This record gives sequence, structure tokens and C-alpha cells, in this order.
Amino acid sequence: MTKVTAQLSVSLDGCYAGPRHTGDGDWMDSAESAGFFRVTRWVTNAMAWRERQGFAGGEQDANSDIVAESFGTAGAYVMGRRMADGGEIPWGDEPPFRAPVFVVTHRPRETLVRGGGTSFTYVTDGVVSAVAQARAAAGGRDVAVAGGGSLVRQVLRAGLLDELELHIVPVVLGGGLRLFDAGSGGGLGGGADGGPDAGLGLGQKEAIELTPTRVVATPEATHIRYAVRGRAPLVLDDRGSGGGPTRTAG
Amino acid sequence: MTKVTAQLSVSLDGCYAGPRHTGDGDWMDSAESAGFFRVTRWVTNAMAWRERQGFAGGEQDANSDIVAESFGTAGAYVMGRRMADGGEIPWGDEPPFRAPVFVVTHRPRETLVRGGGTSFTYVTDGVVSAVAQARAAAGGRDVAVAGGGSLVRQVLRAGLLDELELHIVPVVLGGGLRLFDAGSGGGLGGGADGGPDAGLGLGQKEAIELTPTRVVATPEATHIRYAVRGRAPLVLDDRGSGGGPTRTAG
Repeated sequence: MTKVTAQLSVSLDGCYAGPRHTGDGDWMDSAESAGFFRVTRWVTNAMAWRERQGFAGGEQDANSDIVAESFGTAGAYVMGRRMADGGEIPWGDEPPFRAPVFVVTHRPRETLVRGGGTSFTYVTDGVVSAVAQARAAAGGRDVAVAGGGSLVRQVLRAGLLDELELHIVPVVLGGGLRLFDAGSGGGLGGGADGGPDAGLGLGQKEAIELTPTRVVATPEATHIRYAVRGRAPLVLDDRGSGGGPTRTAG
Repeated sequence: MTKVTAQLSVSLDGCYAGPRHTGDGDWMDSAESAGFFRVTRWVTNAMAWRERQGFAGGEQDANSDIVAESFGTAGAYVMGRRMADGGEIPWGDEPPFRAPVFVVTHRPRETLVRGGGTSFTYVTDGVVSAVAQARAAAGGRDVAVAGGGSLVRQVLRAGLLDELELHIVPVVLGGGLRLFDAGSGGGLGGGADGGPDAGLGLGQKEAIELTPTRVVATPEATHIRYAVRGRAPLVLDDRGSGGGPTRTAG
């Protein structure tokens, strides 16, 4: 059965890239890209990723197995406009997806067909529609929400995400684009990935509960997979009573 | 040999409590406490923690073992003023620490001696001094930086932290007090824990590198211990070259 999945490499402080690059200058020289390449280093070093890119070398290890698995289970992708734009040239004639990609954007554009099974379809009527189109195209495999963070938040907020995998990289960036924080990365956050971004829309004492279903520990990243259970109120249960739970430890 | 350690329970979005409670009203009824009690539920449910509090019941499991271990290895504590103030009444006559606690504060106060081996010494000349005093008092065991986040950031920034353990709880709070983000929790961030808080003081393309040394996975939390290696520049290595690393996956 098709699941809607998302995965993101994040620093210990929850950033998937450095502070948002704005204005002049090359993105490749920006603090945003410096952070992005640090948290995705385990990916670019993985043999399974390098093979898809046509690069030589790389490590054949547990990290590479996780990359291979994620390529193998995805029957279609949903992607933000900013990521799709940024990748269009470097991904070249045979992008690594080898599956239909649905790009959430405000700008209509004809479907772009690339080699190796990858196509980019530009969806202008929102994230729910993009996920539905990707489901239909996935052939029973999973729909992978490929990012960026704004798009993952929209899918999560819409209650459409079944599974989240975080690749937690042992580095503290000190600031940058945060997966779960619409206001991060220099105060922009909104719209840059092709959709409105009002955060997760949770109430004051409300949270999204998940269940960890797999942990793979490597020196380069701790890979934690979660099933998304959904919104739940934050209630103060009585387990800590008998003087009241205190602020110690943890 | 004495290590300086810190550990904190955090949500998937890096919060150790909900948004900072300000103004009127009971902290226990606040969104800050609702988030705090959610991320520390694995602690308050642990038998090892409940025993120290004089509470009945609790789970005797891997989570409890981690609580017991952390109590066992700490020979002295360093604590922020806000946490010490908040705990003073609920911790009662026999606080759970059973070791000297050094509280970083601007307000001089006589040492408070409690039962069971706990004392609170108020240190007004800064975090470096508090860590030094705790080292001297630790009797060869570890110095545990007990929080909150502002204090952990100060110790990390000063290059004094040897080991960090994060207890990553499978919940997304959507906002709150973030360990690594001085500006989180409603824009205050500074000074509330007893010291200046200008964040981690990292440069634009600089990060703090760590090495994971242990991962313990439970349904309630993923416990990841890190050795802190220290500051390092973010350099774009050449592993991703051959067309340039791209923005895919990860």
C-alpha cells in the first residue's frame, strides 16, 4: 500500500541547511549551502547516491543501504519549487529520481521529461493535489516528499504524511533553515517553496505525536524512522503526582 | 577523569519546553510546562527517577537505566537560576541530586544545604567559575550541566562541554524553548537563566562537530550520546564533485 513518506538530513539543532541565501552571490558559496552540504555529506559519500549521479567511488556501508532503500521504495516524488529549480541544472539529463516528480509551484509550466524515467510535472493547485497525483503515479510504491522543509510542513499540516525519517547528523550549525520552524532561516519561510507557510498550525497545547519504528546508528548519522500518529492534545497526566513532577533531569 | 556533561530531553523539533511562560498565571498551567512535561514524560515514568522523588511506581526499563546512570555518574551539578528557582519548592527537603549544585545567577545568596547530600551554591561570577567549582566538588565523578538551554549553550560556547546526551522524544511541539536557539521561545532567550545569551557565537561558515558514541532506542525516546569535538569550519570537500553535488535526497 502506498505510504506518503518524507526524509530529511538535519543537524543536531534541526537545520537542513544554513541561513537562507538571499540577494547576490552564488548559492554554492553561501552559508546556506555550506550547512546543506555538511548535513548531506553522508548522502554524497554514499555509493548508492553516487551511482545514481554517475559519480565514481563512495562508501558501501549502512548509510549507502539507507539511500538505496529510499530510492527503491519511492514510486513518485513531491517536491517544492525552490528545490526543483535549484536541481534542474546539476541533476542534468538523467536526474537521480527515475520516477515522476510533482513540483508544487505557482507558475504553470509544461511537464519536463528527462532520461531514465524522471519527469517533472508542475502542479499549481496545491500540495493536496500534488500528493494525489503522485499517489496515482506511484504504481503502489511510496510517495516521497523530497523537500524542502516548507513542503514537508505543508504535507504534515494537511495530515497527509504517514512516515518521517530523520537523518540526524552530529553537527550543530547554530542557525539555518529548520524543518519544523516556519520562521527560521532569516524570517522568510513563507512561500519560497511554492506554497503558503503558516507553520504546522498547532494549537497552544497541541502536538504531533509519532512512534519510532526503526533506528540505524552510524558514525555519520543516526537514522530514525517514525510513523506519524497525528495531532494530540498535550495533557498533564497524573504519573508525576505525589508532590508534583519537578523540573529535574531530562 | 571528570567530564563535563549535559543532557536534555527534546522534541523532534528541538524544544525542551513549550513557548516561554511570561506574565500572569500558573507555570503549571502554561504551554511552556505542557511541552516540558511531554518531553520529560519518559523521565517521570522511570522508576529510577520516581525513587529519587519518593514516588511509588514507574517503569523499570531501559529508560530507567539511563536515568539511574545519569544520577550515578554526576558528582556535582551546574544549573541555571531559572531552573533552580522553579525547582526549589517541588524538590522539597531532599532534592533528587544528592550532590553539590552550583547555580549560575546574578543574585548573591547564602549556600542552601538540603538533606540527602544536596546543596545549592549560588555563583555570581559566571559559568566558567561555576564549572570550575563543580569540578573541584565532583570528587572525580562528572560535572552535569542540568540546564536549562541557555546555560548549556553558554557552557558549549565556552568550549567546556565534553559530552552531550540528547533524549529525542517522538513528538513535534511546533514551537517552544530550543536548546540551540538563543532567539527561541518568544524572543526572550537572553539572561533568563542567569547569564548573557548571545547564542553559540559561531561564524557564518562554522559549526560545532560531535561524534555519536552511544545510541539507545526505546519507544519513548531515542537516547543519543555525543562526544563534543568542538568548532570547525564548514568546508566544501571535493567528494561530491564530478558535476557538483546536488540538492537531491537527504
